[in-house]
Amino acid sequence: MRAVLFQDKQLSYQAEQEAPKAGPKDALVKVSKAGVCNTDLELVKGYMGFNGVLGHEFVGVVEACESQPQWVGQRVCVDINAACGVCDTCVVEKQPHHCPHRTVLGIVNHGGAFADYIVAPYYNLYPVPANVSDEEAVFVEPLAAAFEIPEQMKLAENPKAKGYRVIVQGDGKLGLLIAQVMRLYCDEVLLFGKHSSKMALVEPFGVTPVLITKTPVESFFKTADIVVEVSGTAAGLSQAMNLCKPRGTVVLKSTVAEGAALDLSPLVIDELTLLGSRCGPFDVALQALAAKTVNPLPLIQHRFPLEAGVEAMAVAASRGTLKVLLEL
Amino acid sequence: MRAVLFQDKQLSYQAEQEAPKAGPKDALVKVSKAGVCNTDLELVKGYMGFNGVLGHEFVGVVEACESQPQWVGQRVCVDINAACGVCDTCVVEKQPHHCPHRTVLGIVNHGGAFADYIVAPYYNLYPVPANVSDEEAVFVEPLAAAFEIPEQMKLAENPKAKGYRVIVQGDGKLGLLIAQVMRLYCDEVLLFGKHSSKMALVEPFGVTPVLITKTPVESFFKTADIVVEVSGTAAGLSQAMNLCKPRGTVVLKSTVAEGAALDLSPLVIDELTLLGSRCGPFDVALQALAAKTVNPLPLIQHRFPLEAGVEAMAVAASRGTLKVLLEL
Repeated sequence: MRAVLFQDKQLSYQAEQEAPKAGPKDALVKVSKAGVCNTDLELVKGYMGFNGVLGHEFVGVVEACESQPQWVGQRVCVDINAACGVCDTCVVEKQPHHCPHRTVLGIVNHGGAFADYIVAPYYNLYPVPANVSDEEAVFVEPLAAAFEIPEQMKLAENPKAKGYRVIVQGDGKLGLLIAQVMRLYCDEVLLFGKHSSKMALVEPFGVTPVLITKTPVESFFKTADIVVEVSGTAAGLSQAMNLCKPRGTVVLKSTVAEGAALDLSPLVIDELTLLGSRCGPFDVALQALAAKTVNPLPLIQHRFPLEAGVEAMAVAASRGTLKVLLEL
Repeated sequence: MRAVLFQDKQLSYQAEQEAPKAGPKDALVKVSKAGVCNTDLELVKGYMGFNGVLGHEFVGVVEACESQPQWVGQRVCVDINAACGVCDTCVVEKQPHHCPHRTVLGIVNHGGAFADYIVAPYYNLYPVPANVSDEEAVFVEPLAAAFEIPEQMKLAENPKAKGYRVIVQGDGKLGLLIAQVMRLYCDEVLLFGKHSSKMALVEPFGVTPVLITKTPVESFFKTADIVVEVSGTAAGLSQAMNLCKPRGTVVLKSTVAEGAALDLSPLVIDELTLLGSRCGPFDVALQALAAKTVNPLPLIQHRFPLEAGVEAMAVAASRGTLKVLLEL
């Protein structure tokens, strides 16, 4: 099969890569479209020491599924955390996303979706509703990660949440999705960023852009109930703590650790909550796309055939690029 | 009046210090006993740039209170956060402990309790029940800080809390109080420390001591629902994150910031909550002392007259010392 491979620190397109083999609990999915994520860009810099086919944001059609043949022909998104399904974390704690034995599609010990075929456990499959296009469905994985924030914070059950001021720090792909999602739960969402053209994409959803190159950030200090930090820097995290009201919450959404020096005294003095947040609920993201309460399509900036995967990765890595899709 | 003063970077005992003057909303309290806290030791190293009479853990008797004369003669503990009572944080948010205009008794712009007299707003006074001794009442401030943890985490309302494993890291004064308090809410509380004699003090309360010089800490990795970090080091915080189960909570209880390099990736990957925690509810601490559900008395190690306050501070600063009291 065709595939974009990262092997021995080299990124390459392979026309004749061996297709993955489905185990007894697996489905074989023919990939239709895939998206390039910042995590992919980190993996080719050495993150996780990954070797294999890249890609974890995708939509496809089930081609085979030995134990659950009713899935065959179904258009699906696939949860990227492939849990063992039998350990205490999976069964007792009901936290398969945190299964210590999990593989992660295209990230940890599991081949990815920049290829004609991918395999994954059948219990990771989510059917895509008819009114959700393939291009929308490609966004389900990062959109689920955005919906993880209101799920963890139980915002839907909190009668005060509507009145919260939320600040999202970072106007990249994930920041733009998170701003849209948070606006479904809270009436005031400020998006802090440096690119007015990007931020304009979410203004129609009621998100207020704040161009931090022109507006003094200090005027927002101690005013936010929730700050979502997506800029991924130590300076961003320090600023996030300063933006929070006492007893507010800073959500940390960042794949890459910095190991930078951090002064956590505001956390103690203001009794802040720092909440780590990773992967989220696919079903909630698919429901939102079906209900058209969020729209990721304006984020698509480039489309490449799979054969141009190496070039697609380079374009995605260039500063300020939004979503790059691979079409199979 | 007599006082232990920290002025121009010098700690001294003063026999003829001017007594503080009570404002219209203040009570004048004659101090009976006071305790030396680690924060006092930090203040004389330069923390907060403090100048004035030290001391914020104390019990006394109201000698004068212009606007609320019914307090006169009452034995009291006094909340150390003197809020303005009129700003949005005080009135709308109902968070006087976080009032941006607050002074803090013996810590921030407010004279302390290592003296014959202290003044404080009358609404900061808490009557001491008859069955709570002065020596017990001296512990109300740090005990309230310990009770802040279950209050913030709403443990009393959480039906799962009883079954939680809690690890308290640090067998100093505050760690010993926190271990006792957490044991009221959770059936398994492990106290990680280096001093078996200290840890033995809380064993009668059902706390399990773990001597970390003899037990490999790694065997507890990813097993705790809550880790309370009281050791105050960056290494301690890193270890706390490793001890937590996915989606667990690390409580940060530490006055001094380090600015050390920190790898926060476990926070994101395991979706941990890092919760800053500071001052707590005086009423809850007094109720617990009255109900005899906690007992801080075994923590008292030395008693000094106020005139020996400088020596008392030196003894408190020596490694491994538990509570040092000043008697007036």
